[in-house]
Amino acid sequence: MDRRLIVIGGQAAGLSAAARAKRIDPRLEVIVFEKSSRIAFAPCGLPYWLEGEVPGVDKLSRFTPEEFERERRVRVCTGVAVVAIQHSRRQVVLSTGERVGYDALVIATGARARKDLPGAEQPHVFTLQTLEGAEALSRFVKDRKPERATVIGAGYLGLELVEVLLRWGLKVRLFEATGGFLGRSEPGMVQWVREYLERLGVEVHLNEPVREIGARQVNGYPSDLVVLATGFQPNVALAEEAGVRLGRTGAIQVNEHMETNLPGVFAAGDCVEVRHIITGTPVYLPLGTTANKTGRVAGACAAGRRERFEGVAGTAIVRVGSLAIAATGVSNLEARAAGFDPVTVEIQARDKPDYMGSRPLYVSLTGARSSGRLLGGVIVGEFGVAGRINVLATALQARMTVDELYQVDLAYAPPFAPVWDPLLVAARELAKQL
Amino acid sequence: MDRRLIVIGGQAAGLSAAARAKRIDPRLEVIVFEKSSRIAFAPCGLPYWLEGEVPGVDKLSRFTPEEFERERRVRVCTGVAVVAIQHSRRQVVLSTGERVGYDALVIATGARARKDLPGAEQPHVFTLQTLEGAEALSRFVKDRKPERATVIGAGYLGLELVEVLLRWGLKVRLFEATGGFLGRSEPGMVQWVREYLERLGVEVHLNEPVREIGARQVNGYPSDLVVLATGFQPNVALAEEAGVRLGRTGAIQVNEHMETNLPGVFAAGDCVEVRHIITGTPVYLPLGTTANKTGRVAGACAAGRRERFEGVAGTAIVRVGSLAIAATGVSNLEARAAGFDPVTVEIQARDKPDYMGSRPLYVSLTGARSSGRLLGGVIVGEFGVAGRINVLATALQARMTVDELYQVDLAYAPPFAPVWDPLLVAARELAKQL
Repeated sequence: MDRRLIVIGGQAAGLSAAARAKRIDPRLEVIVFEKSSRIAFAPCGLPYWLEGEVPGVDKLSRFTPEEFERERRVRVCTGVAVVAIQHSRRQVVLSTGERVGYDALVIATGARARKDLPGAEQPHVFTLQTLEGAEALSRFVKDRKPERATVIGAGYLGLELVEVLLRWGLKVRLFEATGGFLGRSEPGMVQWVREYLERLGVEVHLNEPVREIGARQVNGYPSDLVVLATGFQPNVALAEEAGVRLGRTGAIQVNEHMETNLPGVFAAGDCVEVRHIITGTPVYLPLGTTANKTGRVAGACAAGRRERFEGVAGTAIVRVGSLAIAATGVSNLEARAAGFDPVTVEIQARDKPDYMGSRPLYVSLTGARSSGRLLGGVIVGEFGVAGRINVLATALQARMTVDELYQVDLAYAPPFAPVWDPLLVAARELAKQL
Repeated sequence: MDRRLIVIGGQAAGLSAAARAKRIDPRLEVIVFEKSSRIAFAPCGLPYWLEGEVPGVDKLSRFTPEEFERERRVRVCTGVAVVAIQHSRRQVVLSTGERVGYDALVIATGARARKDLPGAEQPHVFTLQTLEGAEALSRFVKDRKPERATVIGAGYLGLELVEVLLRWGLKVRLFEATGGFLGRSEPGMVQWVREYLERLGVEVHLNEPVREIGARQVNGYPSDLVVLATGFQPNVALAEEAGVRLGRTGAIQVNEHMETNLPGVFAAGDCVEVRHIITGTPVYLPLGTTANKTGRVAGACAAGRRERFEGVAGTAIVRVGSLAIAATGVSNLEARAAGFDPVTVEIQARDKPDYMGSRPLYVSLTGARSSGRLLGGVIVGEFGVAGRINVLATALQARMTVDELYQVDLAYAPPFAPVWDPLLVAARELAKQL
């Protein structure tokens, strides 16, 4: 009899695992259980759908279950939840009451938006992780015509939502518990992003955590609409009840092969913690890329091939208006906490030669004093931000020193970069101080 | 008495050297001799000035001699050529007849456009390296109203010139001796760029070297105007006569400290050959970035500090219309010639998630079979090309394997990249074949 792989969850990680396992071992029977009616849905596209940049919401689902079944030759059961994992019997219990045996199991149960603030369950409070949440927000704005919106949380989702609400013509107030954006608080970056948001009309409140959402106010400021973007919680109850070990972050603990503590049981995607390549410690950073990559590795390993996921650098990017804000690696504070002796420089350069109509570009780099190793960076600007943060992410993966980064033969032509790329200018400044 | 540094050449490399030496050793007397009347001129901006993208030609000179003297505290003598280097006496002979002694010397005599084809001296044949050349081309087009232009050479300058001539409304024919563009001939890249140029109305002749420029025709095709863009020749006569050793490329041979064979004599910029970081052999690739970097190292070393220039990856990028074409590292052929056992993959992916209105992106990667090391890449597309070629350049500098490249935590957000970045897709494909 052929081996059977069961995958719990039919989104990015689960489907990556299922497809990969089947491709490696065509004789493997692969069954995906997805509790909703939709698979392969891209929640990252929701802000752009709300903004009108994505024409139809159906575009956000890459596959229908039928397409996926046909193309990848795995079974997809939608509308079916797994309610228990009985690992001693190597079987799962479905919401239908049925029991299905497995040889290998991939848990890809994802995450849900945090809604843990008092007042979060009121009808004017929204999160934006599901299509239903996005639709409810959109409907509320059309029907109720709120004027004053509050966004809680200045991570990528909060900033994307700020942009959506601005486009809809609302007055937006942003509260963030920390002193920065995207989890980073380099002073030059904070100043730039804050001023930019203020020019767009956003009232920015940093270092102002929200403890409670009122019926008509937040932190004393009037508010008709609240979007909660304070992060995600991994869906781990099912795994935990089955004896799957959780890590310190509260997400499922896995090794580089995405194996849990239970033999034959893998986990991937937004429900797992992963290794940070700079600190070496587990972090919980749910993101689409990581979900796809860990899903793929889980699927490969479940099919018997020893692939590895080496970890994340914590790379993140967000667009607000015409500004892109990006970060990778660790901040000075995080570096210090991880035992490095970090030095951080900030520069403001130009993104092209002056004669080409250049615009400012902010770069901050953090390096380690003894080893000279690059530890992280932040980039803000209107042009060339994604590419430059990716250069830093690559340098981090390669464990490059700041001196080595300075030697990179970056592309030069007037439409793309100045002759001294801002990254090299920043690396030069940092190298002097290490 | 203070030591004196003489710098021959007041453009990118020479001025970088002068400024850097003076900053390191403020007691050093630094004198720059520049035979033209203009310093710090950016010839790379000329195509964009001709196109009208750069408002005034004065924008292309970053400093006047007076500004540079004041800000960097070095002497700048324009309109003065160095006609001989008498190294045994540690002195240079000027066009004025004067002799000036030095303790250290930086040769930054630059390069000139190749004009070595029969017929190249005719009045309807232009090169585009100097302002005078650009002005003459512009004047010729205004006065003579030519209709059919020929560009010889499909490197970055040839392609930039194609765009200038198209914007001016000329019918453009392009001849290239090799089978590709930017010195690369990966089939998918060649096909895409060729078709794109043809859609713009360019008649593309690959594998068609030009042996002679006729009065009214080139290779039998009628032509009223010819732009020669077949590369550069280093200006080495002065150095050679002084006993400075040239390398196999015909340019000045230097070590990583930009030292020539003569003690105390350094060279930098478009007159030197540099080490290719993949092949380890000297190459002649004159480019603004390298000129600035080598100039800076030459200046530092001339002032007594041991800095290093590690070499180039051969990174190049050019914009034609809305297309960007970029390459770094070596091609399959070059890799084979350098003793690697190379494998090349080509993929066509999308530059963003489909729901964001993605456009195609071409990526080719070359890796070494035994070591798995990344050796080079080519990227063509409309969006995100510069950033992605820089990721590859960084990976080359770090001597990353293709597997390591695949592990990089590249930035993801719908406006910037798909969840599987095309670079990772290409790395995955290549890794399978290594």
